[in-house]
Amino acid sequence: MPRHPDEDNHPVATGLAKKLVDAHQARQDLVFWSAWFCPFNQRIWMALEERNIPYQYHEVNPYKKEKDFLEVNPLGLVPALTDKGRALYESDVLVEYLEDKYPPSKEHPPIFPTDIYEKSWARINIQHITKDIIPHYFKLQQAQETEDQQQALEEFYKGLRTLVDRVKLPYFAGEQFTAVDMSLAPFVRRFYSLEEHRGFDGEKALGSKWVQDCHADIFSERESLKNTTSEKEYYAPLLERYLKDEAQSEVAKATRSGKKLP
Amino acid sequence: MPRHPDEDNHPVATGLAKKLVDAHQARQDLVFWSAWFCPFNQRIWMALEERNIPYQYHEVNPYKKEKDFLEVNPLGLVPALTDKGRALYESDVLVEYLEDKYPPSKEHPPIFPTDIYEKSWARINIQHITKDIIPHYFKLQQAQETEDQQQALEEFYKGLRTLVDRVKLPYFAGEQFTAVDMSLAPFVRRFYSLEEHRGFDGEKALGSKWVQDCHADIFSERESLKNTTSEKEYYAPLLERYLKDEAQSEVAKATRSGKKLP
Repeated sequence: MPRHPDEDNHPVATGLAKKLVDAHQARQDLVFWSAWFCPFNQRIWMALEERNIPYQYHEVNPYKKEKDFLEVNPLGLVPALTDKGRALYESDVLVEYLEDKYPPSKEHPPIFPTDIYEKSWARINIQHITKDIIPHYFKLQQAQETEDQQQALEEFYKGLRTLVDRVKLPYFAGEQFTAVDMSLAPFVRRFYSLEEHRGFDGEKALGSKWVQDCHADIFSERESLKNTTSEKEYYAPLLERYLKDEAQSEVAKATRSGKKLP
Repeated sequence: MPRHPDEDNHPVATGLAKKLVDAHQARQDLVFWSAWFCPFNQRIWMALEERNIPYQYHEVNPYKKEKDFLEVNPLGLVPALTDKGRALYESDVLVEYLEDKYPPSKEHPPIFPTDIYEKSWARINIQHITKDIIPHYFKLQQAQETEDQQQALEEFYKGLRTLVDRVKLPYFAGEQFTAVDMSLAPFVRRFYSLEEHRGFDGEKALGSKWVQDCHADIFSERESLKNTTSEKEYYAPLLERYLKDEAQSEVAKATRSGKKLP
């Protein structure tokens, strides 16, 4: 079989993320099957950090579809978890699993609002991010024609605007950093690439609430985001493959063919 | 504005479903915004019944996009709930809300396995149904060319086979009827239309586990499914519009354009 071009991604985390990886090598019941570069994956890494949950870090190259990883997640996607060898995947499910397994306490701070209605409202907005923001993020990144880029940019702004209008400040649910912020933060961390190459201008399109008060600035100071982020230069070749529409991830292929994201 | 052709659907439930509607007219904090004919909607109706949760039934024609309904769900989709006027939508979120609001008890039987891992496994399989079964169900229904129908049928079988292989019998999780069964049951209830018009043959493709022991037969005896189902003749004109690819629901339009389902 020919080598998958994305198999040659830099194999391990760097910078602050490497420090975190090194600190989570000891054997634990809970194993985090992670790809250092993947924004979907970073959500669960942030949740583990935010909630102070003991875990063992296990790097995977999801492009290689290795047998031991496919046994964990038959879909071949990160993030995945095993708990005493029993496998779980789908990031929304993983967040709920961690919530059920480690109920909110002083030791394990909650990542959802305590109020039952607000918790559901958070879940609705995670679905909004999944359905009406992220697909446009990838479309914008991969679109090659000016017209397609323009259309993707407008849809991307529309999805973001709905969310920004609902943000209570400083975070989505107010003072508490929740799973809603966590779902978007790893992508916001990568928006500089859209600013440089796709004319994304959050302040102009979404107003000062976007930049000064809420996501863009505040996220960059969040420890769980900073500590799970590798050195910028290592993301460059990966982002470039998306910008040239050459990436071969399942998400990139789905975006290219106009299908729903996996 | 021209009338939406689907606005003329039969306006109210009939048969056993009508009995249930009539029994849930009294004012309650929890209002169920429902369209009697919609399989997605029927999931939540079944959950309310299975879990013995007090609710007030409120019929909506989602095609009309009436102002009071758009204020509940800006996406204009059923099912939706209001609890003391506060609105919630997205069926996965609604199931979790009912779980949080009415924790499993003798009075309110659980619809998820009690074991934390099994509960997450159930959620993973609900996502499997959403992503890898239902979209093919709609593609198969709406495909007009023989070749497209054949392809949709194969993908549909593939998604179903993965689930059937995991079924513990008699239900997905064993003796307990769970949210996994509930996610699929309203669609299974409509499979006769695919048998008649699209060559669907569950026994031939999926084996006896499908027909004799698990979903097909057992579901048809489930009280919550029977009691939320209207008389067969009233579904006919609706199903026909899908089979002719003339339906104008958001799901039908998304299927037609090859986009992800809303």
